[in-house]
Order: sequence, then structure tokens, then C-alpha cells
Amino acid sequence: MASTAPVEVRDWIRDIPDFPKPGVLFKDITPLLSNPHAFRRAIDLLEEQFRDRGIDVIAAAEARGFIFGAPLALRMNAGFVPIRKPGKLPYATIAQEYLLEYGADKLEIHSDALAAGHRVLLLDDVLATGGTMRACCDLVQSTGAELVGCAFVLELSFLGGRAKLEPMDVFSLVTY
Amino acid sequence: MASTAPVEVRDWIRDIPDFPKPGVLFKDITPLLSNPHAFRRAIDLLEEQFRDRGIDVIAAAEARGFIFGAPLALRMNAGFVPIRKPGKLPYATIAQEYLLEYGADKLEIHSDALAAGHRVLLLDDVLATGGTMRACCDLVQSTGAELVGCAFVLELSFLGGRAKLEPMDVFSLVTY
Repeated sequence: MASTAPVEVRDWIRDIPDFPKPGVLFKDITPLLSNPHAFRRAIDLLEEQFRDRGIDVIAAAEARGFIFGAPLALRMNAGFVPIRKPGKLPYATIAQEYLLEYGADKLEIHSDALAAGHRVLLLDDVLATGGTMRACCDLVQSTGAELVGCAFVLELSFLGGRAKLEPMDVFSLVTY
Repeated sequence: MASTAPVEVRDWIRDIPDFPKPGVLFKDITPLLSNPHAFRRAIDLLEEQFRDRGIDVIAAAEARGFIFGAPLALRMNAGFVPIRKPGKLPYATIAQEYLLEYGADKLEIHSDALAAGHRVLLLDDVLATGGTMRACCDLVQSTGAELVGCAFVLELSFLGGRAKLEPMDVFSLVTY
């Protein structure tokens, strides 16, 4: 008899040693994406967590954030708003700078994508140091929209990113 | 009485003049993404077109390809395989160079993502000159997988990209 146990999202994330640099153990989500049952399970669990929160927009930063953000938006009957690197969005934009290990980077959102009254969930694949998501939070809040929470497929808790997102509601499917 | 006519995908694509450079009329899909009915309609129409073709993998290039590829994969109960710019995929990769207007670029796929026996649909948001999709086709075919077709949300037919993809089966939801 086939097992009726739900697919475990964690079982479809693999470790890649020394990526992107020596000594780092990278969590690779491509096995999860290649298995539609596991991928759907991840989207279902994210939806369950936020279904009663009146979310009407899912926003996510390129590129891996798009892979989870777009299906979750459709699943929740919400709009999808892409957050992008500079120069990629064609219409007028609002920008937010953020610091990297060396130097700075910038993220942009269309100036007409969000407004007061929108209830927004931010989504990304990985919570590491939290720098990118912090910039996304600031970007969403600068539009006047209400930021309901930040969701992740996986969280590297030893990097302390959650503290950088306080006092936001932060949810991760899988924590290391 | 509310109209029961289906949402028209075309009505949710807007023109942005002079992007990314003067004289170019850019087709912006962000209004489509912001409307879950229109976004779902696009995914439904893509699924209808390919539902009887035995597709088991949807592959798409970053970043906008991910926005349509991931939901279509879940809708078709297929795996999703991301095609990325160099240095982004953590495991061993296969690469394909392609020419741009000035210079060259490269796309990569995980070496274990596809194999003989897989039936693959490639998806992207826009068919313009066809250079990126041609590189994606070559990449998929170099793995031994069977490439069933190339699908697009919109096609700029005056740029002649379809000819560059021959003899592939090419389908576009909206043609200009």
C-alpha cells in the first residue's frame, strides 16, 4: 500500500558544499522544484499559514523569489508584484539601497504597484542574513501598503536574519 | 449583470514607450501579474495548449520566465527546471553561449536536471529576436531530453524570432 504521509519539503532540499565560496554549505532547492508534489506541498503550507490574513498582494524579489511568489499569488487569489534589480522594471520605480558584505546594491518596485489599502506578504526562498528582505520590507512600507509578514521556504537561523526583520511576522517552512 | 466573458490576457499588457532605449515600445506584463484573474487565465490557456503532449518538465530562463514557468509546472503537474545566468546554479552545470546585439552571454542548467525520457516545454514571457530561447532549446536538447515546444505569453512577430526557433513547435498567447 502506498504511503499516505505528506511529502516533506525538507527531504527535497539538498546540501551543496563550498558554494558560492569555500566553507559555505549551500541549500539547493532545485530538487524541490523538480518534484511537483513536493513543490505543491511547499505552496500549500505557505498558503495555510497566511490564508486568514486578508493578503491581496504577494511581492517577491528576483530571481528565486519569483519561483515561489508567483504560484503562491495564484493559490491565494492575490496579485503578484515583482521586486527587481535596477533598470529591469519599465515603468516609474521606487528604489531601496541595501548593504552587502562588500559594497551596496539596490532593489526597485513599480511606483504604481502598491498603495495604501493593499495587504502585502513578502516571500523569498531563503532567509540568510536578512539584508535583501529588510530592503524589500522598507520598499513595500514606503508605498503606504500594509506589510502583513515575511515568508521563506527555508531559514538559516544561525545567520540571525530574523532579528534584522523585527518586528515583522516571519514564517519559514524549514529551519536549519 | 456581471459579464461572464473571460478575461482577455491582451487587455492586461501595457505599452511603455522608450524602454529600455529610445524608440522601443516595451510590452509590460506587470499589470497582468497584478490581476490574479488575468494571470490565472494566461496559465490556463498555456496549459490547454499543451495538456495532451505528455509534458513532464517545464523549463524557463530567469527572471521573468520563472514567473510563468513555475505556476504552469504546478498546473501541469510537471517538474520545474530553472535556466540561469552563469554562477547562479550551485550544482554541476551545462552551459550554452549565445550572441547579443553587442557581445555574448551564457545560460546554464544543472547537469542532473534533465535526461533522455523527459518531455520538456520551454516557456518565456516574450518572444523577441529569439536568441535567448534558441540558447534554451540547444541547452535542453544537449541533455538528451525531448523538447516538445516553446511557449510565450507574448510574441513581437515583427522581430522574426519564430524563424530562429524552427523547426520547433512555437505557441504564443498574444501576438503583436
